[in-house]
Amino acid sequence: MEHRELMTLLKQVQCGQVSPEQAALCLKKEPFESLGYAFVDHHRGIRQGAQEVIYGEGKTPQQIVGIVCAMQQRGARNIIITRMSSQAAEEAAKHFALEYDEKARLGVAVPCEQQKTGRVAVVSAGTSDLPVCEEAAKTAEAMGCFVERVYDVGVAGLHRLMARLDTLMQARVVVAVAGMEGALPSVVGGLVSCPVIAVPTSIGYGASFGGLSALLSMLNSCASGVSVVNIDNGFGAGYLAAMINRMGEERGV
Amino acid sequence: MEHRELMTLLKQVQCGQVSPEQAALCLKKEPFESLGYAFVDHHRGIRQGAQEVIYGEGKTPQQIVGIVCAMQQRGARNIIITRMSSQAAEEAAKHFALEYDEKARLGVAVPCEQQKTGRVAVVSAGTSDLPVCEEAAKTAEAMGCFVERVYDVGVAGLHRLMARLDTLMQARVVVAVAGMEGALPSVVGGLVSCPVIAVPTSIGYGASFGGLSALLSMLNSCASGVSVVNIDNGFGAGYLAAMINRMGEERGV
Amino acid sequence: MEHRELMTLLKQVQCGQVSPEQAALCLKKEPFESLGYAFVDHHRGIRQGAQEVIYGEGKTPQQIVGIVCAMQQRGARNIIITRMSSQAAEEAAKHFALEYDEKARLGVAVPCEQQKTGRVAVVSAGTSDLPVCEEAAKTAEAMGCFVERVYDVGVAGLHRLMARLDTLMQARVVVAVAGMEGALPSVVGGLVSCPVIAVPTSIGYGASFGGLSALLSMLNSCASGVSVVNIDNGFGAGYLAAMINRMGEERGV
Amino acid sequence: MEHRELMTLLKQVQCGQVSPEQAALCLKKEPFESLGYAFVDHHRGIRQGAQEVIYGEGKTPQQIVGIVCAMQQRGARNIIITRMSSQAAEEAAKHFALEYDEKARLGVAVPCEQQKTGRVAVVSAGTSDLPVCEEAAKTAEAMGCFVERVYDVGVAGLHRLMARLDTLMQARVVVAVAGMEGALPSVVGGLVSCPVIAVPTSIGYGASFGGLSALLSMLNSCASGVSVVNIDNGFGAGYLAAMINRMGEERGV
Amino acid sequence: MEHRELMTLLKQVQCGQVSPEQAALCLKKEPFESLGYAFVDHHRGIRQGAQEVIYGEGKTPQQIVGIVCAMQQRGARNIIITRMSSQAAEEAAKHFALEYDEKARLGVAVPCEQQKTGRVAVVSAGTSDLPVCEEAAKTAEAMGCFVERVYDVGVAGLHRLMARLDTLMQARVVVAVAGMEGALPSVVGGLVSCPVIAVPTSIGYGASFGGLSALLSMLNSCASGVSVVNIDNGFGAGYLAAMINRMGEERGV
Amino acid sequence: MEHRELMTLLKQVQCGQVSPEQAALCLKKEPFESLGYAFVDHHRGIRQGAQEVIYGEGKTPQQIVGIVCAMQQRGARNIIITRMSSQAAEEAAKHFALEYDEKARLGVAVPCEQQKTGRVAVVSAGTSDLPVCEEAAKTAEAMGCFVERVYDVGVAGLHRLMARLDTLMQARVVVAVAGMEGALPSVVGGLVSCPVIAVPTSIGYGASFGGLSALLSMLNSCASGVSVVNIDNGFGAGYLAAMINRMGEERGV
Amino acid sequence: MEHRELMTLLKQVQCGQVSPEQAALCLKKEPFESLGYAFVDHHRGIRQGAQEVIYGEGKTPQQIVGIVCAMQQRGARNIIITRMSSQAAEEAAKHFALEYDEKARLGVAVPCEQQKTGRVAVVSAGTSDLPVCEEAAKTAEAMGCFVERVYDVGVAGLHRLMARLDTLMQARVVVAVAGMEGALPSVVGGLVSCPVIAVPTSIGYGASFGGLSALLSMLNSCASGVSVVNIDNGFGAGYLAAMINRMGEERGV
Amino acid sequence: MEHRELMTLLKQVQCGQVSPEQAALCLKKEPFESLGYAFVDHHRGIRQGAQEVIYGEGKTPQQIVGIVCAMQQRGARNIIITRMSSQAAEEAAKHFALEYDEKARLGVAVPCEQQKTGRVAVVSAGTSDLPVCEEAAKTAEAMGCFVERVYDVGVAGLHRLMARLDTLMQARVVVAVAGMEGALPSVVGGLVSCPVIAVPTSIGYGASFGGLSALLSMLNSCASGVSVVNIDNGFGAGYLAAMINRMGEERGV
Repeated sequence: MEHRELMTLLKQVQCGQVSPEQAALCLKKEPFESLGYAFVDHHRGIRQGAQEVIYGEGKTPQQIVGIVCAMQQRGARNIIITRMSSQAAEEAAKHFALEYDEKARLGVAVPCEQQKTGRVAVVSAGTSDLPVCEEAAKTAEAMGCFVERVYDVGVAGLHRLMARLDTLMQARVVVAVAGMEGALPSVVGGLVSCPVIAVPTSIGYGASFGGLSALLSMLNSCASGVSVVNIDNGFGAGYLAAMINRMGEERGV
Repeated sequence: MEHRELMTLLKQVQCGQVSPEQAALCLKKEPFESLGYAFVDHHRGIRQGAQEVIYGEGKTPQQIVGIVCAMQQRGARNIIITRMSSQAAEEAAKHFALEYDEKARLGVAVPCEQQKTGRVAVVSAGTSDLPVCEEAAKTAEAMGCFVERVYDVGVAGLHRLMARLDTLMQARVVVAVAGMEGALPSVVGGLVSCPVIAVPTSIGYGASFGGLSALLSMLNSCASGVSVVNIDNGFGAGYLAAMINRMGEERGV
Repeated sequence: MEHRELMTLLKQVQCGQVSPEQAALCLKKEPFESLGYAFVDHHRGIRQGAQEVIYGEGKTPQQIVGIVCAMQQRGARNIIITRMSSQAAEEAAKHFALEYDEKARLGVAVPCEQQKTGRVAVVSAGTSDLPVCEEAAKTAEAMGCFVERVYDVGVAGLHRLMARLDTLMQARVVVAVAGMEGALPSVVGGLVSCPVIAVPTSIGYGASFGGLSALLSMLNSCASGVSVVNIDNGFGAGYLAAMINRMGEERGV
Repeated sequence: MEHRELMTLLKQVQCGQVSPEQAALCLKKEPFESLGYAFVDHHRGIRQGAQEVIYGEGKTPQQIVGIVCAMQQRGARNIIITRMSSQAAEEAAKHFALEYDEKARLGVAVPCEQQKTGRVAVVSAGTSDLPVCEEAAKTAEAMGCFVERVYDVGVAGLHRLMARLDTLMQARVVVAVAGMEGALPSVVGGLVSCPVIAVPTSIGYGASFGGLSALLSMLNSCASGVSVVNIDNGFGAGYLAAMINRMGEERGV
Repeated sequence: MEHRELMTLLKQVQCGQVSPEQAALCLKKEPFESLGYAFVDHHRGIRQGAQEVIYGEGKTPQQIVGIVCAMQQRGARNIIITRMSSQAAEEAAKHFALEYDEKARLGVAVPCEQQKTGRVAVVSAGTSDLPVCEEAAKTAEAMGCFVERVYDVGVAGLHRLMARLDTLMQARVVVAVAGMEGALPSVVGGLVSCPVIAVPTSIGYGASFGGLSALLSMLNSCASGVSVVNIDNGFGAGYLAAMINRMGEERGV
Repeated sequence: MEHRELMTLLKQVQCGQVSPEQAALCLKKEPFESLGYAFVDHHRGIRQGAQEVIYGEGKTPQQIVGIVCAMQQRGARNIIITRMSSQAAEEAAKHFALEYDEKARLGVAVPCEQQKTGRVAVVSAGTSDLPVCEEAAKTAEAMGCFVERVYDVGVAGLHRLMARLDTLMQARVVVAVAGMEGALPSVVGGLVSCPVIAVPTSIGYGASFGGLSALLSMLNSCASGVSVVNIDNGFGAGYLAAMINRMGEERGV
Repeated sequence: MEHRELMTLLKQVQCGQVSPEQAALCLKKEPFESLGYAFVDHHRGIRQGAQEVIYGEGKTPQQIVGIVCAMQQRGARNIIITRMSSQAAEEAAKHFALEYDEKARLGVAVPCEQQKTGRVAVVSAGTSDLPVCEEAAKTAEAMGCFVERVYDVGVAGLHRLMARLDTLMQARVVVAVAGMEGALPSVVGGLVSCPVIAVPTSIGYGASFGGLSALLSMLNSCASGVSVVNIDNGFGAGYLAAMINRMGEERGV
Repeated sequence: MEHRELMTLLKQVQCGQVSPEQAALCLKKEPFESLGYAFVDHHRGIRQGAQEVIYGEGKTPQQIVGIVCAMQQRGARNIIITRMSSQAAEEAAKHFALEYDEKARLGVAVPCEQQKTGRVAVVSAGTSDLPVCEEAAKTAEAMGCFVERVYDVGVAGLHRLMARLDTLMQARVVVAVAGMEGALPSVVGGLVSCPVIAVPTSIGYGASFGGLSALLSMLNSCASGVSVVNIDNGFGAGYLAAMINRMGEERGV
């Protein structure tokens, strides 16, 4: 609020045009208004061009269709829908083009060809972690990344991991997915020189406590350059990986 | 192991030059040897040029001095020493140039002038989180990043955070540090379009349970692009931030 | 127990009218009897006029009907039934007027028109939290509050929250509902000058641990004026909000 | 600047006692001003209609003195300083009037006589909980509440609690403090008709797990109208109690 | 074989009613005898002076029938079967007399009239805790105790508890059952002068964490004379209560 | 005044040895009297038929002396003071006779010779658990029990436990104390036919988590007749043991 | 190819029975081969000197058949398939010989007669633990161990355990399986002089917390020579037991 | 109890030489006596020749000296004293020969030369884990094992681990020690064909939660042949390793 506006307000109070109560409310909102949610909103508009995402859980097929159609009209493409049930996918496919991965429960609506750039590696320890891996991989692909899958290379069979070392070392960012003891990101983090995004999964039994064991393991990783997202949050890892992967391109001009 | 080598080995067994036991050991190591730890080691040599780091905890001043001197002879500069006690710093300063921050318990040995590039923002909620913030900030600076500090902008006083929005929005990567309820990274993650590295701190009392509350909060963040490191791990966040910040430069050529 | 009564009792022991055992029991109950549960009971009668509530979980439809009818005969109106199944609601509706919200699993029996006073705001972060929100809102309404709903204003999209700032600032009390990272009450608590009742929900996955993450977050809130109820306890929050809202009216005379 | 003061100022403008220019000057001094180590958020007073509070933990005596003096110049009175060490208190007392309670670690700087209104009851189960109780009681008093202390009335000796029933029933809001099994707020909540703010304390041993037992107990309270703050958070409870207590007064005009 | 029966047998030997040979035969059949699927520990009766009990969970109806019949042939009566499904009960009732309580999932096989002695009170906070209460009450009854039920007397409605004070004060041992905040045993423990056995139940939601809240509450009870059994372990509490109740009888001779 | 004393008094009234007036005077001194820092609950003796106990933790020596002297004047003897520091004991010993056990941190004030009756066995697994054992044993002794100590008979050396089987089998109640894996009460519970009170201790390291491991073990005991008190709560176990032990005596008349 | 087979092959080369060319051909078929869905790690046999094992969870019957057939062609026998559903077993039995245990969910494919050596004892506390016991026992048997089953010998009935002491004392390694309080391994560990592998099970309710209680108990065991595997991990225990059992044989030559 | 003895007893009852009460007591002890603690004791005597161990924690120097001297007289050598303070060591060294390691807090009393056999490898991730490693290594050495130390080979620097592969592959048993993420045992378990004993350490900070993270990681290890001991339990691991190592020797004759 500029000095001029403040003076105007106070004079309105003085002459009775504005009550003290109205003025008080007005002054209370001050520090936010001057920065403006309109501005913030505008900013988000720009950012969201980066990637449109719909969290599908708990939304009816109709709701999803409605949102996608509105987005599509604004020109959105490659709209990611996470945690999408196969029923929702079936319904949705009647209204717009949809690439759907049932295991990953991920849909990409209004897909359009795009140049894949950079290199994101998605590494996993066991076959049971595949749905989370694919959620990460497909998210990154929908956001324009070239993705390499390096699956079933757990730390208890190190030679298999090493056989894929070249692929890992050429990545700009690695998404490392593991349940049970969650050791993979630490081992990978010691081998590569790029950021590693660790995703604990709820795969396991007994003392894995729904992914807690893997989560703690990853948070305590001795390797530098490792950070962690929520248990089973393949989407979050893929999204962040795409963000980082894009930095090389964007800034590089 | 090439066919020729395998044949040589087996012939040596046949003629008694090599015992079956020796041959068995040799064959067991096969899958690793053919990939070669020497190669890995070489690779690490290259990578570590990126940044030399010494974990100071539990090392005597003499041990630290010994390691730094050996590194220095190989030409290392800006060697980061984390969790360094002030006594160790005092002793170390007799042997080589050292920039030491007592609060952050971080030393930079053999510092040398370097061009700061990119932009890392370190954001914190309260003054009590400063040591962790500075550990992150100084780590990133020692690794060549230009760092902006945005301190004391907790979510319970949102206007202060908004007053610094410009700074946040120009960062390539944000390190968001918070104890207690740990809400800052979520709010920041909703405002910026770059990766956010969340650092929970052990600041708090009662149901903060030594940082657990902040940690869980950050892992559950609704904002996309947020990942988390260990409680109080300022170094890890600073290191990862520098990695990401550098991507723009490195890839950009 | 007056001196006279004590003497009477002891004399009855002396003359054999009362056995020592009976006298001992009598003396043991002394401190409670003199204060009197009858009085307490009477007091509750008055208080419960404030609001009749039935906890529906684990009660058969017949039991619920029985209780409501007994209450109704004593003149009760707007009787709240929480955790009411839709079957129970169907059955109940045959016996008395019932407004039932299936999502919130809340019924209001024998509803009667009442003047809504004050202003309670119910704020939520995500659409998945709606059942808990509505349990809170409908409880407060049944207790005579004017309720404003401010839904889907999570902290990762701050501008949406700010767009509703006017509504929040005019509330006498705010109920802030959130799952996942549970940051909403802290942010709201920093914006308004009235009490904020935080309700963690069990919405989330992985490290949300059934609402634990949100619960701890809220307990550690840096904002003053925030208190917390049990996970998913929308009724409790609505009830307390109504209590606080009413204070302005009651005391204001 | 509290809500009341702002209203006074604006009414003075309305009736011509203060010119808009004078008022503008006054308000412009308000928004936050940097003291280097911490933003002092003068604006908070307006926005929250609330008390000035300094969180003393981890601040040097000099920092506290600096903040208080800046506040005092703007006209602040009864400034609450929580978690204040006795050394800090000693040092502070050289620079301004200070009422200090060592057990509660609470100081009230620049105290000034004020009319105590309403009625807040602070109830506790054991003598060990006294520091937390007094933090709550003194906070509420500094914010203008009339406070009744009802100490040492644990649930294992119910008759003592009942002997004080009158006092409890006349309160506008009750702060119930308990460690160990934390049952007091439930029992009190069943006896009174006003809001109960439950404060778990870390008093106990073994399976009290630093206050966790009491905390869970209170969150699960069967009594309506009970909400909970963080373990040992006497200040938070006192602050919220004052907020609620004031509602009768403020709205009543 | 219970202690009493063993004494009877030995006295019969002493007075010549039973020959040593007959007694030896009788005793030799006692020590454990294999039924294939599980040792039935007949010896336990002697050693523990206690009741025959079968843990029904995970046993087929056929297995249960087999065990009971073997016991019955040795003269056992009032055989308690815990965690018995209604299917198992239906099947069992074809082979021997069975009193079955579906809610408590408790059966008493080969029931025979016995004099009920002493007085055990079973107290509960809510109607949802009834199955656990009945498991306790029926166990104690099968073991010869006179049991008083004092249900639905939660701490949030203290007057209901007080209205039953006489009953509680005349008990030899009280079993106090509660879920949610688990405060009942503490309050009861402060009112009576006999041992109180606290049974936490898994009733509740949110932060009750499957009975953990009630369990911790009870372990931290401030009242002397309170001890705790496992969550939902009504049988264990009833069994222990009968043990304590019997002490007055047995020792009293 | 204990239950026994009350009965004696009333019987004396019944048979004319004491006049109602004398008895009334005697009883009127009973009800609680305020010492400022803490209610001394004289009535508790009557109501609970129990021992006078002072919880020493956090009380100054002066406070303890004050309370004891007030009790002593009313005729109390063998007053138990738990968690009493050696300094407090030293100071207290100047004002009244005191038997103090430093390890158990337990004092018995105004000790007077009394007939020890019944039999309580205190069993422990390791020498480190001795302070908790002695707290239990000395409490039971001060309450008139004959106590047998069976120490250092852990389950990993079963023969030592068996060598003391006679002692265990003759007890009316067993207090079983164990840290680490906490298996002792289960094994003992399978050997004896009387109630077993299990006391987990905080002795251990690593995954003993301050006694949590032992606590859970004991709660899950497969042996019937076992109940549990708080970690390290030797007093509570001793008190309850004395209650149960006394049942044989009291009821037997 | 197991260690033994490799040694045999090399010794045949040494003594001229097999030519280096033949051996090379044999070895070259070994290294891993991709089946698309999962690496089959043939090399593991050599490196670990161990058994072929397939983790059946989450694999389709077709995938399992594919893997087994590939193994079988290379000469593998007694292939263990863990966590195998009965549907998978039914399907598999059409393609190769299969011994399947439904309770243990364990299959042994292409079983072939082998000499059972050494002695492994599997001990359990309750009948509910049988599936885990059998998973351990059958795994050890498939790996060539002679296995003794000692079931239903819980610590609450010690005499049953002692009746089997001879069997336990003759074992080379004991697998001790227990849920609830998990005390069995400690007691067994104190009786035998060989390694004890403790397996906590998820059997129990309430404070057993899905096996956590038993797990902690076992980790805190006071008996030397006890180590622990994951909750319900019968396979892991059986595998390790076989490893240890074999040591006597292998090294003994 | 033989049939003959039972008959004798019963006849004594018949003729009045033994009272029924005495006979009952006698029969109650039966099942244990016939197996005999004397026998068990004898058995332990034999076993303990395997290794004498004293748990030093909480024992005075005098107590330790007393125990060692008694053992020495019976001919014991190489007596291990764990958790021994340096003061105790100093005092002890005055009375008998003692090899003491201050870091490991381990003493070996009356050491005597012995042939070291087999091969135990102790592997560790970081230098901070050394005390636990040495406790394991020195325990195994005192029990006659040849021990190889492979230190500072964490998974984040895999090449260092691989450089020591020969040593690991030749071990009979590996003790793998790690704090933080605890991944080392999994990686090692995938490389070797012998049993791996995993020891989590409390080294770490934040979400390592005193070793919990490493402990869970190890319990969830995907590698076969891995079992776990308590956090920081180097002694336990060394003892078990020696047991396993000895099997090759003992059985081999």
